[in-house]
Amino acid sequence: MSQLDRIKYPHDLRQLKVDDLPEVARELREFIIDVVSTKEGHLGASLGVVELTLALHYVFNTPEDKLIWDVGHQAYGHKILTGRKGNFHTNRQLGGVSGFPKRDESKYDDFGTGHSSTSISAILGMAIAAQLKNMPDRHHIAVIGDASIASGMAFEGLNHGGVTDCNILIVLNDNAIGIDPSVGALKKYLTNVKKGTAKEENIFECLNFKYSGPIDGHDLPALVTELNSLKEHSGPKLLHVITTKGKGLKKAEEDQVTYHAPGRFNKLTGEREKNSAEQFPAKYQDVFGHTIVELAKNNDKIVGITPAMPTGSSLKYMMKELPQRAFDVGIAEQHAVTLAAGMTIEGFSVFCNIYSTFLQRAYDQVIHDVALQNLPVIFCLDRSGLVGEDGATHHGLYDIAYLRCIPNLIIFAPMNEQELRNIMYTAQFGLSHPIAIRYPRGRGVLTEWRQPFEQIEIGSSETLQEGTDVAVLSIGHIGNSVVEAIKEIDQPNKVGHFNMRFVKPLDHSLLTKIFEEYPHILTVEDGCKMGGFGSAVLEYANEKGFSKRVKILGVDDTIIGHGTVEQLKQKAEIDVTTIKNQINSLIHAQQPSS
Amino acid sequence: MSQLDRIKYPHDLRQLKVDDLPEVARELREFIIDVVSTKEGHLGASLGVVELTLALHYVFNTPEDKLIWDVGHQAYGHKILTGRKGNFHTNRQLGGVSGFPKRDESKYDDFGTGHSSTSISAILGMAIAAQLKNMPDRHHIAVIGDASIASGMAFEGLNHGGVTDCNILIVLNDNAIGIDPSVGALKKYLTNVKKGTAKEENIFECLNFKYSGPIDGHDLPALVTELNSLKEHSGPKLLHVITTKGKGLKKAEEDQVTYHAPGRFNKLTGEREKNSAEQFPAKYQDVFGHTIVELAKNNDKIVGITPAMPTGSSLKYMMKELPQRAFDVGIAEQHAVTLAAGMTIEGFSVFCNIYSTFLQRAYDQVIHDVALQNLPVIFCLDRSGLVGEDGATHHGLYDIAYLRCIPNLIIFAPMNEQELRNIMYTAQFGLSHPIAIRYPRGRGVLTEWRQPFEQIEIGSSETLQEGTDVAVLSIGHIGNSVVEAIKEIDQPNKVGHFNMRFVKPLDHSLLTKIFEEYPHILTVEDGCKMGGFGSAVLEYANEKGFSKRVKILGVDDTIIGHGTVEQLKQKAEIDVTTIKNQINSLIHAQQPSS
Repeated sequence: MSQLDRIKYPHDLRQLKVDDLPEVARELREFIIDVVSTKEGHLGASLGVVELTLALHYVFNTPEDKLIWDVGHQAYGHKILTGRKGNFHTNRQLGGVSGFPKRDESKYDDFGTGHSSTSISAILGMAIAAQLKNMPDRHHIAVIGDASIASGMAFEGLNHGGVTDCNILIVLNDNAIGIDPSVGALKKYLTNVKKGTAKEENIFECLNFKYSGPIDGHDLPALVTELNSLKEHSGPKLLHVITTKGKGLKKAEEDQVTYHAPGRFNKLTGEREKNSAEQFPAKYQDVFGHTIVELAKNNDKIVGITPAMPTGSSLKYMMKELPQRAFDVGIAEQHAVTLAAGMTIEGFSVFCNIYSTFLQRAYDQVIHDVALQNLPVIFCLDRSGLVGEDGATHHGLYDIAYLRCIPNLIIFAPMNEQELRNIMYTAQFGLSHPIAIRYPRGRGVLTEWRQPFEQIEIGSSETLQEGTDVAVLSIGHIGNSVVEAIKEIDQPNKVGHFNMRFVKPLDHSLLTKIFEEYPHILTVEDGCKMGGFGSAVLEYANEKGFSKRVKILGVDDTIIGHGTVEQLKQKAEIDVTTIKNQINSLIHAQQPSS
Repeated sequence: MSQLDRIKYPHDLRQLKVDDLPEVARELREFIIDVVSTKEGHLGASLGVVELTLALHYVFNTPEDKLIWDVGHQAYGHKILTGRKGNFHTNRQLGGVSGFPKRDESKYDDFGTGHSSTSISAILGMAIAAQLKNMPDRHHIAVIGDASIASGMAFEGLNHGGVTDCNILIVLNDNAIGIDPSVGALKKYLTNVKKGTAKEENIFECLNFKYSGPIDGHDLPALVTELNSLKEHSGPKLLHVITTKGKGLKKAEEDQVTYHAPGRFNKLTGEREKNSAEQFPAKYQDVFGHTIVELAKNNDKIVGITPAMPTGSSLKYMMKELPQRAFDVGIAEQHAVTLAAGMTIEGFSVFCNIYSTFLQRAYDQVIHDVALQNLPVIFCLDRSGLVGEDGATHHGLYDIAYLRCIPNLIIFAPMNEQELRNIMYTAQFGLSHPIAIRYPRGRGVLTEWRQPFEQIEIGSSETLQEGTDVAVLSIGHIGNSVVEAIKEIDQPNKVGHFNMRFVKPLDHSLLTKIFEEYPHILTVEDGCKMGGFGSAVLEYANEKGFSKRVKILGVDDTIIGHGTVEQLKQKAEIDVTTIKNQINSLIHAQQPSS
């Protein structure tokens, strides 16, 4: 039996001697590599904090002491040491362990994370609570990376924490990389600190934190000693720990971006499973990434911005080919949007690429800095809809609803790669309004997406087929599921299918025609129902006095967890089978009375 | 003719000698006091930057050089010096000059502001654009206060700006106060800098800005000299300027919070116009402020949080009486929400009070940190609906739409003070979900609001009167306009009026009854129509197969500017007269066919 097998909970870990810990670290690392190599998931971040994870649970009395993992995809070691080793092979699967800390999964998961930079505020809330409850000896630890601490929200937490006398320990896990390499002045500063070239006073001391470090985050005895020492100091503290992302797997250390979440790989060599050359259909992100380069080469007004997602958004291609006009601004969605507004005023066509779920961070900036001033920023919302294994924190389900209420904003969803390209082409010379272009995680549907560009008229829809009984109105990529569903039904000629393309402005003349001509209407979207696309159709029908009922397929008002996209679509009842069944049931329904 | 009268535009100012500037400052200050003393508006901030405003326009070549005023209520001097002196008496009035910089008002207003901390990102966008357009000599200045620079978004801008070689000058206008006194570790640090007790390295230098100062912001020759010197340095710079809010009006200097926006006052003595003792009805904010104290005295789990609005939210009463449990966290809405989440986990009942428009800044935190974890945080959204003279940037029009799509969230709007008190009473022991309580700027309707508490059942509505022809469904305070409207119609017994109270969960049984019994249905809300309360009613009706048309009164999908609340309600067609006319026209309409 290995050391690791004997550790069910941190209590077991604490029975060991410090000298035993390096062996546990070795086994823990091996276990993580073992599982992730076949089950997939986030790799590099968890490998980087193996020693830190052990040291924290060894020194502090979890779960009485509170421990929050910022972002949370580095918490695999934490999960394995806190009762979830046996289930860890179900990581990120439907019904399995979540890829992120979740409060309802374990009492050791003190705060659910997923988006970055929340940990300082949350731990401070708990620490203030401890003061109010007169629990002066409880410790409160947040582990946060150097990319995440540079986000505005983290600064707000530090700025408050520094004027309290709360027992908080911020562990800055400095590996100089988020998903992509860290950027910004703070990163530069931290590099100087590590090199010893920074001046004497420390930026965190300016904010009234007791600073210690930098120390080697892979040196277990040093970590234990330092954490034990910090335990004795009350008040706000920051420990600067230097780690290597991917530590212990050579390939992961060498190619940290790829091994952030490498897919399956050989656990001994680290070699990733080969995909056969270029795959088709292409990913939407790559269609975006290559198309912006293609357009920008002919249009020197095009600029690209990503908040810390050069790889995920595929803006990396433009950053390589046209580095002057492609910007990674770090985990700073708020800044990204208002920066885009400033550039747009100066006549640039700014493609600001932000995952749907992360645009929530810049909601005020979209309203206040872009829409109120009617600046034609071009938002590209990757990962809209259900994203799969990353789960609840990462689904892009709310964007249609939260954007639809904003005046001046155009909302478009391409049904395929070519529509994404064409709307980018259309927007590149500046529309009269800002536009949000939402498209999903994953692949499109075309074998050849590099086709000649065509303008898309704003507010225009596309009629895919006319029918007699049921009009299906779809928005975006999920329209392809409608196409499949129609193929599977017995009387496809009874079904009209309309690719609406624009959530806003809606194609009013088409809607009028549909409400006048079709007995039954079905809307299909991969977003929340409340306030979504179907709701927009209802609003229009109501205003015009059409009294036909509309069957709305979308995600109900409930939290959807993790699983494959296909599993989650079934769960949310927006999969092909559900669509097919709905169409069939409408075909066989009686004509409505009015 | 005064010096000031000769200055139509900054070009005229630049013809003067530096020695002439103090006289212009005197006249400009007098002019601001003159106008604001009778026309009302923001006073203290603009008085504090009179010299800075003159120096900036004197040294820099506006509007070719770019100048952004963060928040913008300190820009009165800027407006007066840039062609708007003649119209300045229309400040904040319907059709008049805006109280904030607006791009469509003047080419000198380079960026529309209103919410804080946007200026650094926006000016950096323009500065990067200048690089791309090969305009190396253009200057880019953002003036930002010490309260605003402590907000996360500003940090994100600095973090990016510091690694560029852009020509940006951040002028830190340090008066140690926002609307209320500044808080936080950065403020403490800046105080040390001013006292000379900070250590050698500077926090802004850590972020790679060339720091200069602190200098006296009321010393015109010194300002001109320093700005001229900074003009010669390319790259990111920060000038730390010390000013006194309210400078030049003794009472405004002494009582900076009151004189932020003092209402009418005697321009010579500064004495404010007396209001007759305590006014009735009370302001909603005060009902909140006194009620939380009343509840918290009997419930030691109650905590209050405000991001920089102790006075505006009236949390100041609790901060005075129960300082351990009332927190002003500075302009940090994101932090405020996640801090509340952390405390809620620890068993506290956290009332997190944020203006509707500012909750936009914490949208992701509401979803990701509160709703996904179903933590029963109690959000109090003051200033929801139309806010009047502050205009487009400050209206709270979108909250119903942007909150309604979030799972787990309860949304409540009190029709009067008593309902606000009762929902606070109901929520204080922790609901099973988070709740957002939205109420408007201004006063309620009751002469006596301190009445015994009563529980409100979640999801329950109140039937104010039954009728025969028209059912009016109102949400929140605007229900009082419906009451007035019904009083004015000839056949009030034909009208049913239902105070729905909850946007979510809707009172389904009442809705069913209404759709079954009333021929005509009217919904009334003081928020955007798209995705709003009326839309929620439509969704329910559609789902249940009710085909009656619903007339929805709310704010159309367009930007509403500034004016009195009453004027804006008329413009938005949600005023008493419009409601009355709508009811009348429905009474006289034919019965719907179905």
